[in-house]
Amino acid sequence: MPHETSFPIRTFHTDSFGHVNNAKYLELLEEARWRYAEDNGLLKLLNKANLGFIIIDMRLRFRDEVVEGDRITVSTQLLTLGSASGEVEQLVRKEGQSKIALKSLFHFILVDREARAPVPIDGDIRELLLNVIANPG
Amino acid sequence: MPHETSFPIRTFHTDSFGHVNNAKYLELLEEARWRYAEDNGLLKLLNKANLGFIIIDMRLRFRDEVVEGDRITVSTQLLTLGSASGEVEQLVRKEGQSKIALKSLFHFILVDREARAPVPIDGDIRELLLNVIANPG
Amino acid sequence: MPHETSFPIRTFHTDSFGHVNNAKYLELLEEARWRYAEDNGLLKLLNKANLGFIIIDMRLRFRDEVVEGDRITVSTQLLTLGSASGEVEQLVRKEGQSKIALKSLFHFILVDREARAPVPIDGDIRELLLNVIANPG
Amino acid sequence: MPHETSFPIRTFHTDSFGHVNNAKYLELLEEARWRYAEDNGLLKLLNKANLGFIIIDMRLRFRDEVVEGDRITVSTQLLTLGSASGEVEQLVRKEGQSKIALKSLFHFILVDREARAPVPIDGDIRELLLNVIANPG
Repeated sequence: MPHETSFPIRTFHTDSFGHVNNAKYLELLEEARWRYAEDNGLLKLLNKANLGFIIIDMRLRFRDEVVEGDRITVSTQLLTLGSASGEVEQLVRKEGQSKIALKSLFHFILVDREARAPVPIDGDIRELLLNVIANPG
Repeated sequence: MPHETSFPIRTFHTDSFGHVNNAKYLELLEEARWRYAEDNGLLKLLNKANLGFIIIDMRLRFRDEVVEGDRITVSTQLLTLGSASGEVEQLVRKEGQSKIALKSLFHFILVDREARAPVPIDGDIRELLLNVIANPG
Repeated sequence: MPHETSFPIRTFHTDSFGHVNNAKYLELLEEARWRYAEDNGLLKLLNKANLGFIIIDMRLRFRDEVVEGDRITVSTQLLTLGSASGEVEQLVRKEGQSKIALKSLFHFILVDREARAPVPIDGDIRELLLNVIANPG
Repeated sequence: MPHETSFPIRTFHTDSFGHVNNAKYLELLEEARWRYAEDNGLLKLLNKANLGFIIIDMRLRFRDEVVEGDRITVSTQLLTLGSASGEVEQLVRKEGQSKIALKSLFHFILVDREARAPVPIDGDIRELLLNVIANPG
């Protein structure tokens, strides 16, 4: 089941087109991923090992404008997990709507923050991710 | 030929991973697109008609970290043009390097800013875009 | 009594100095003011009348660094209210600490968002603000 | 004589009030300070010694709205210099206008970026700053 985080959209999230700007959107999506990692215990494991996830590829499709005063729900879900990378899907809906306003996919790797180098996704971090993945099959 | 814009990377562009954050990257890429539109005369046409380009899909692949003190060059190029949408490619290189640090593709539509609705890409705007497109064939 | 909002500090809030950047700080403080306005009913009154508060002067004193992994509490309090302007104080503390990490004062006016012009602070908005002000005397 | 940097204001600098948001303003002012430091040779000295300036107090007075399509000029000037701190003034004007749209004062200290601790402003950095200060008297 996806993790859900809700955000109210303020004036400072939107630009003079009147809608949430791409860059601000990425911050809201990143905050939703952090809360996902906080709520499922991943953040604690990452901090203990001084590891972090880095995005190497992302795709976003904007299907509906989000404007000041909207409240959005971000559904975050781990979709795939390889030995050294994985994919997280994030869907945005306006509260009370089933229509998807934004569909996004983030491809990530795990890095050692001190060495600034990729590391395999294994041990207790892998175990945790296998427990939260959408389709472990 | 692609349009080139150069940016120095400051502390405020980077996050505590020590590299340019995704959201900040999008602002630098957007600024590069604005300068492209300013330099080729497009911005003037858009403002006269109260039109604007909106991104509906974007894909970014981060191949190399960019850190504080780097200077990046953004190459911006219109790749395709349909009747109501088009695609702009933006490549980022660190100054003096041929290696691509970021590869991105932005799919856009044209909208009437007052009516907040898509409009066809035609008239003098189309003419201008056909002159700057990479592969008009 | 001041209104309190708590935020976890993420990598994207911090810059390559390793601490929360000034600009990001302002967004966190603004979000805390919005929640204050949401929780005390002010936001509803503003939206009904298409009014908004605009900052005309702000002063911030940074006394202690806030870094990734910190959790901050923002205390927001209306300090003074004139006929057309007022002052909000915002204090930031790291969770569990009494020491103030940031002290700030925002001087605001009320504007009609359609006319883009200042308006007096009166009627039900004034009544509400007089109820939440720190020192109504 | 103050250092001058010019910025065009884009949609992404402005919020749904239609004007440049406080947080974005701080980024533009910070970029102007970096260019000042780049142009007068300060940045090179700071990097060589792994030092950086940190803002400890700032005051901004917004006198006139800046909106999409405006081009602003930021005048940056070192006003005072103590043994361990100093003050930079930044004034913003819309291009071609003498009226000040924003008046700001930033109080800074010098820090060792490795030790994350304040250091005296002396040696070649002090010499350089004394050469660019407005009122050395």
